[in-house]
Amino acid sequence: MIVTVVGIGLIGGSMAISLKESDWASKVIGVDKNQSNLDKAIRRRLIDEYLPIEEAIKQSDLIILSIPVDSITKVLPLVLNQITDQIVIDVGSTKSQVVDCIKAHPKRGNFVATHPMAGTEFSGPEAAIPNLFDHKCTVICDKEDSSESALTIVKEMYKALKMNIVYLNSKEHDIHTAYVSHISHISSFALALTVLEKEKDESRIFELASGGFSSTVRLAKSSPAMWIPIFEQNRDNVLDVLDEHISVLSKFRSLLIKKDFDSFNEMIEEANSIQKVLQKK
Amino acid sequence: MIVTVVGIGLIGGSMAISLKESDWASKVIGVDKNQSNLDKAIRRRLIDEYLPIEEAIKQSDLIILSIPVDSITKVLPLVLNQITDQIVIDVGSTKSQVVDCIKAHPKRGNFVATHPMAGTEFSGPEAAIPNLFDHKCTVICDKEDSSESALTIVKEMYKALKMNIVYLNSKEHDIHTAYVSHISHISSFALALTVLEKEKDESRIFELASGGFSSTVRLAKSSPAMWIPIFEQNRDNVLDVLDEHISVLSKFRSLLIKKDFDSFNEMIEEANSIQKVLQKK
Repeated sequence: MIVTVVGIGLIGGSMAISLKESDWASKVIGVDKNQSNLDKAIRRRLIDEYLPIEEAIKQSDLIILSIPVDSITKVLPLVLNQITDQIVIDVGSTKSQVVDCIKAHPKRGNFVATHPMAGTEFSGPEAAIPNLFDHKCTVICDKEDSSESALTIVKEMYKALKMNIVYLNSKEHDIHTAYVSHISHISSFALALTVLEKEKDESRIFELASGGFSSTVRLAKSSPAMWIPIFEQNRDNVLDVLDEHISVLSKFRSLLIKKDFDSFNEMIEEANSIQKVLQKK
Repeated sequence: MIVTVVGIGLIGGSMAISLKESDWASKVIGVDKNQSNLDKAIRRRLIDEYLPIEEAIKQSDLIILSIPVDSITKVLPLVLNQITDQIVIDVGSTKSQVVDCIKAHPKRGNFVATHPMAGTEFSGPEAAIPNLFDHKCTVICDKEDSSESALTIVKEMYKALKMNIVYLNSKEHDIHTAYVSHISHISSFALALTVLEKEKDESRIFELASGGFSSTVRLAKSSPAMWIPIFEQNRDNVLDVLDEHISVLSKFRSLLIKKDFDSFNEMIEEANSIQKVLQKK
């Protein structure tokens, strides 16, 4: 299987490593608008060669779009215009606008909308790592709009990445990810800003930062180039969750003001039950 | 050095392990109001023996209070009443009310107020681990109120735990920890509640939860028995930081509503600078 990865960053680069390592891909071609990413990808041996996108598409069996979601909606229709029987997938973090942009395309069946739920707070080809996807969950959206043969190959590919497949429609996907991913990022960005603001007066504040702080602000290192388009495309769902999150925080605030620590205690006990959920994973 | 640890949980138990392992303590005596904690601590060999607190104090050179901060303010004056030349420290997460409760005690000089900035989201003797404190930071508060000889021994003890010592007054400590620790916990509790609320309708939501989600809600597993007294004692500082945090989140909300993604982008870039801070650590 010859695979083209468009966008050799954290996700595309990590897929390139694992697909080649598992022998599922005989060759990985890199495409990136940034030449320095391609140079790094060659040096790190993430890809076998790089080519202009038109040429890469011609030579490939499968094309993976691992670029920010605003670029997917621009690039995906152009890619579908150029394929014959190749299969195309995207790995973006939002799905509704992605599937909408090629809804009526004659090659819609060759496309599978996917979202491997894996990542780190780092970006670029230097962030690509082996085993990033092992035993994690990937979503395939609106599978009834993809051809059986395309689905079969994409399922095989995710098995080669050792991922578990979950099927959702794209609207459900976008609601779910607002809860289990997008809000975590907003919370982390906000926490970093809250504390950085204080740091201006108190330069020593971070000497005291321990593991708990680092873990809650880890995602605040995430790249705006990736996340702004996600918040743009999933704005309505993110707003709903953000409203809920602010309202829970405001409830904590009001309990502190009233010194109602019994109710505060109950809320923490309720929050503790997240443990059972995380243990299942 | 014979050491008594009052409260054989995550912190007390981990100190017991490392002080014995480093040979700084020749013997560790456990005190706990919960007999099952003492039994576990014996089985896990965290302590050499357990005794009633009065007897343990008599036999010890150093007494460590590693109990929730509301218990510290109750137990600390009673312990100081019983000592002759023993040294007493607490390792609680708030400091102002702790030092206030023994401000005028004739044995004030024998007491050193400390806060080793290390922990996990787990609690109890089963959560005690080796190397928990290695290369982390510990705070000594209001050192001018402790005797030179007490300070010398406590500094040696923290060196045996491989910790770096920072000196702050207790008021500064409580402001700093509100920023770099307490708000992270509130944010995490709130995030867990936000998502758990949604889970009631959508049982599959957690299949998709990835590493980012787990890391931001990790602290939501923390015990209310430890955290409610912290929020109670540090209420005013926590309220200030929580207000700031809610206001940053509300700014994100308003930018989403206005679709002002340029300003959103600027805020994320600013949040990204947390990276430089975390890298220093």
